[in-house]
Amino acid sequence: MNIAVEKVTSSKINEVDFDNLAFGSVFSDHMLECTYKNGAWETPKIVPYQPITLDPSSKIFHYGQSIFEGMKAYKDKDGGVWLFRPLENQKRLNISAKRMAIPELPEEYFMEGLTSLLQVDKNWIPENDGSSLYIRPFMFASGNGFHASPADEYKFIIATAPSGAYFSGKVRVLIEEKYSRSANGGVGFAKAGGNYAGQFYPTQLAKAKGYQQVIWTDDNTHEYIEEAGAMNIFVRINDTLITGPTSDRILDGITRKSILDIAADEGIKAEVRKISVAEVVAAAKSGELKEMFGAGTAAVVSPISGFGHQGTDYDLPELENSYAMQLKKRITDIQYNRAEDKFGWRYRVI
Amino acid sequence: MNIAVEKVTSSKINEVDFDNLAFGSVFSDHMLECTYKNGAWETPKIVPYQPITLDPSSKIFHYGQSIFEGMKAYKDKDGGVWLFRPLENQKRLNISAKRMAIPELPEEYFMEGLTSLLQVDKNWIPENDGSSLYIRPFMFASGNGFHASPADEYKFIIATAPSGAYFSGKVRVLIEEKYSRSANGGVGFAKAGGNYAGQFYPTQLAKAKGYQQVIWTDDNTHEYIEEAGAMNIFVRINDTLITGPTSDRILDGITRKSILDIAADEGIKAEVRKISVAEVVAAAKSGELKEMFGAGTAAVVSPISGFGHQGTDYDLPELENSYAMQLKKRITDIQYNRAEDKFGWRYRVI
Ligand SMILES: Cc1ncc(COP(=O)(O)O)c(C=O)c1O
Ligand SMILES: Cc1ncc(COP(=O)(O)O)c(C=O)c1O
Repeated sequence: MNIAVEKVTSSKINEVDFDNLAFGSVFSDHMLECTYKNGAWETPKIVPYQPITLDPSSKIFHYGQSIFEGMKAYKDKDGGVWLFRPLENQKRLNISAKRMAIPELPEEYFMEGLTSLLQVDKNWIPENDGSSLYIRPFMFASGNGFHASPADEYKFIIATAPSGAYFSGKVRVLIEEKYSRSANGGVGFAKAGGNYAGQFYPTQLAKAKGYQQVIWTDDNTHEYIEEAGAMNIFVRINDTLITGPTSDRILDGITRKSILDIAADEGIKAEVRKISVAEVVAAAKSGELKEMFGAGTAAVVSPISGFGHQGTDYDLPELENSYAMQLKKRITDIQYNRAEDKFGWRYRVI
Repeated sequence: MNIAVEKVTSSKINEVDFDNLAFGSVFSDHMLECTYKNGAWETPKIVPYQPITLDPSSKIFHYGQSIFEGMKAYKDKDGGVWLFRPLENQKRLNISAKRMAIPELPEEYFMEGLTSLLQVDKNWIPENDGSSLYIRPFMFASGNGFHASPADEYKFIIATAPSGAYFSGKVRVLIEEKYSRSANGGVGFAKAGGNYAGQFYPTQLAKAKGYQQVIWTDDNTHEYIEEAGAMNIFVRINDTLITGPTSDRILDGITRKSILDIAADEGIKAEVRKISVAEVVAAAKSGELKEMFGAGTAAVVSPISGFGHQGTDYDLPELENSYAMQLKKRITDIQYNRAEDKFGWRYRVI
């Protein structure tokens, strides 16, 4: 594929303080852009990062027809650039697309588009430990009209942002008993825009009570733990790691499934089964609840220091040798090309 | 409030065929625009209908933080211009805003903004029977950043579109048994963008089977009828009209509640209670199911000619004196100022 590249006339890179990167708030010089029109995706092109202009009747403004992905590019100490299981993101983008009635994108548009973009903006990939280039592929309805039906035009864009950690400090979570993230038969398994906006208000309420995140439970009984805002959830009871099964309500996280494979490899006993809130509370009371952590591309592995439920707060112990730290080290060593990758997950870009 | 008006230099109105209006696909000359910035809504202004320019990291593209309303302006035979219960839309917009963590808009910004806009574009309000000016107030996150959290800037826009009927021809519906529209504790009661995109794919599947709309059922059991894509649903069994109660899964439709008041006034027995699919199927089989219809601003009162459920199709009889037609006449006579408005629903603009 011949991806046309229009370069910026002057780079903004010198304005960026790579030693103090926030998450996703400065953007690299270029972006990939691809338009769906007349029933087909046009060849993607690389252009300067620039505003998008849309008619006020564009369906993105009215009907939430949008999906996205979240990935990272990692630079190793020799300047090599790596992605982590990028084809999983590409496949999941199309799973989301199908559910949201958005046309699927051919694999090579995604992979060639992304690798070309990273080549053009390779200087934007941070070298500092714990930093990476956050990659945001997204797709939305750009076609017009107030009729509540799928659009006839779409945009696929990849923008990137050199980023530091997603969370700063300890993460305390609230186990939700009133609000829900997704329905059976709904769109929870898709990385659809609307799934996120729906979480903002309950998360604001949780923040006002001193929690950083909500742990979602099933919408019918609120008895089972599902996932957090942008992370899947693991619970360690005694020496067993447990995470809920995926379903049409839960995002099938790439970090989650990688952690399960690593755990097996490290000889950590892991179970994929429903986790009831009652079980977690009982284990917290008896001292058998050793750890909880979130797993996701942005959050990597984020230890949870405590949780609230029905007005009571439960603290988790601070462990010397936590599974969270063991698993985080192993996965980031693979991502940054610091250790062997027996799973074949690393994908070389440069 | 002093609403600045920037007028178009030349109107597009002569390009419009007012005798053959589709729904929501041609747009009037002007729009109202209002920006939320630094913690407050700025004074709205009227500008030529024009494209919106946004950064690729604007949260609308990523997190579905958007809400809307749907209203109509009606012209009577003397050129008077009317709205129908506009304060209900204004209130519902703020109910949606709150749930989607979008700042609420002061009532006068909405009402004065809307009436000023209608005065500027009064020639765009169709006079033909069955046509009206469809009004689309909407609000979305225009602030930037890849962090999954509420934006710091928002836009509120009102655009209008002279429109004909929403449905053309008979409406056959499919009672859904697999997919769902909303969760308990979710955002179904809000007019949030993502609620609509989530319906597109199941609706496409239904269309492929010959139905125009899906009737949503509860996500837990699929045993109870909730609502349709952009309409609340009424069922008539023998001489009783039934509609489901509102809940956090269902939009509290203004047409629905007006129909309930009109029914009471006309001496039609109406019940607000859960309607089971089993009951509807049984009534269809026994011949007691006389009518089903949808009610909404865009669809007005739309009779349903039949429904599918678990692979079986059920036809509804064609009645001479249907409740649907009686109620539709009564409500549209009020809307178009053709009859007395004992409820005080009409709101004069011009
Ligand atoms: C809702 C949700 N759950 C889980 C995850 C973790 O998925 P992954 O590990 O693929 O990043 C994410 C973030 O990407 C998410 O948005
Ligand atoms: C999901 C949904 N239900 C019901 C309705 C009907 O509401 P109203 O009568 O206020 O237009 C609408 C349309 O506005 C809708 O979008």
